[in-house]
Amino acid sequence: MGRIPAMSEASLIRVSEIFGPTIQGEGALIGVPTVFVRTGGCDYRCDWCDSLHAVDSAYRATWTPMTAQDIMDEVARLSGGQPLLVSLSGGNPAIQPLAEVIRLGHAQGYGFALETQGSVAQGWFSDLDMLVLSPKPPSSKMQVDWDAFDACLAAGQGADMVLKIVIFDEADYQWARDVAGRYPQLPLFLQPGNHTPPPPGDDSATVDQVGVDARMRWLVDRVMQDKWYQARVLPQLHVTLWGNKRGV
Amino acid sequence: MGRIPAMSEASLIRVSEIFGPTIQGEGALIGVPTVFVRTGGCDYRCDWCDSLHAVDSAYRATWTPMTAQDIMDEVARLSGGQPLLVSLSGGNPAIQPLAEVIRLGHAQGYGFALETQGSVAQGWFSDLDMLVLSPKPPSSKMQVDWDAFDACLAAGQGADMVLKIVIFDEADYQWARDVAGRYPQLPLFLQPGNHTPPPPGDDSATVDQVGVDARMRWLVDRVMQDKWYQARVLPQLHVTLWGNKRGV
Repeated sequence: MGRIPAMSEASLIRVSEIFGPTIQGEGALIGVPTVFVRTGGCDYRCDWCDSLHAVDSAYRATWTPMTAQDIMDEVARLSGGQPLLVSLSGGNPAIQPLAEVIRLGHAQGYGFALETQGSVAQGWFSDLDMLVLSPKPPSSKMQVDWDAFDACLAAGQGADMVLKIVIFDEADYQWARDVAGRYPQLPLFLQPGNHTPPPPGDDSATVDQVGVDARMRWLVDRVMQDKWYQARVLPQLHVTLWGNKRGV
Repeated sequence: MGRIPAMSEASLIRVSEIFGPTIQGEGALIGVPTVFVRTGGCDYRCDWCDSLHAVDSAYRATWTPMTAQDIMDEVARLSGGQPLLVSLSGGNPAIQPLAEVIRLGHAQGYGFALETQGSVAQGWFSDLDMLVLSPKPPSSKMQVDWDAFDACLAAGQGADMVLKIVIFDEADYQWARDVAGRYPQLPLFLQPGNHTPPPPGDDSATVDQVGVDARMRWLVDRVMQDKWYQARVLPQLHVTLWGNKRGV
């Protein structure tokens, strides 16, 4: 009995923020000049979420419904009309209708990476240049639906796919070992978690950089102890360089 | 009328240090578990060299002549006999007879990257998995011989080749723009210089991390201003994580 959305409304994308160009701070594309399109809304609620302003529906009023053309216009404005990498993040960008953004952007020479926990598969995943699957470890208090995850993997065939796992502690680490063992075909990136994520309303909140660096060193040591040489270990550069500040 | 070296002596490699496994802290292979073989001796003397203990002949007594088999034995010991990436660095590793190290290592499943300024070409460059060409910018006070550099590029055909340029200031930056323009086929990595490199005898010397981070932010801004989106900008993670400490 609910309201039936008009065609145009169904194709609107809820956008939390569009910013850049700056470098991608983490993962497989670390260091690559990127404009970020962060969508609003998430089917997860990770215990240590570092993007609550794009997740918690309390912030829904700050999310702007935009058409694909609106989004690409803003990306083109920020990038001076020169193609570069666009990172689709969130929230969970996989719950948004992004096919048309990718189509429009590709036509102008832009590349697209999307990062998702792997809970919702979309047919247009295969149109991406890179699909980053980042299943959430035990410390998140989330439960991975592996059938849904495998559906994402199947949907992403044609894109470069990588596995990125955030690690806070030994339990997460052991979990990552198991998960990586299930997906030996995926290039693997491990990332120490930021235990001082910003509260959604305060991007000047201080990062415990000493603690973040210590966790990175611990993770490197742990990987080397286990001779887990297939894993690539990378920190979040943007946290080191810009703290919790948004828009960089 | 100098001494004629015996065959075996000519094939000895001067090694400053072999350490790891740890992560590669910079460049294209950032985050990849790696054992480093740092050779002793260099045909350059960069103004801001961060590895003087492997460059200055005052430290020659600390360099050990080793056979290829000696080196791979030590790499295998450090890596627990499990293949991983070996980074050949220096000094300038290109002035050492490393063909046999690569041959032996490949037979055991090890991969090899070599980083050189591009002043001396070797036929065995083509046997590498990755050749990192890092021509030195004006702040180094060195003068690049571009014919020699192009000979390195020719010798490296068959290896993945990348260009890595260290940048200290605006003059270096403008120089990097020119150089990158000459080699559009090479993936490009820019790296802010460490203006507080360790003196060769003191690896506990403090890094000006605030200054290093500021230079990284400046370089990111500079690249974005120019819409130089082909450049990938990465810091030296090991400096952030372990300071000037050697062997990590």
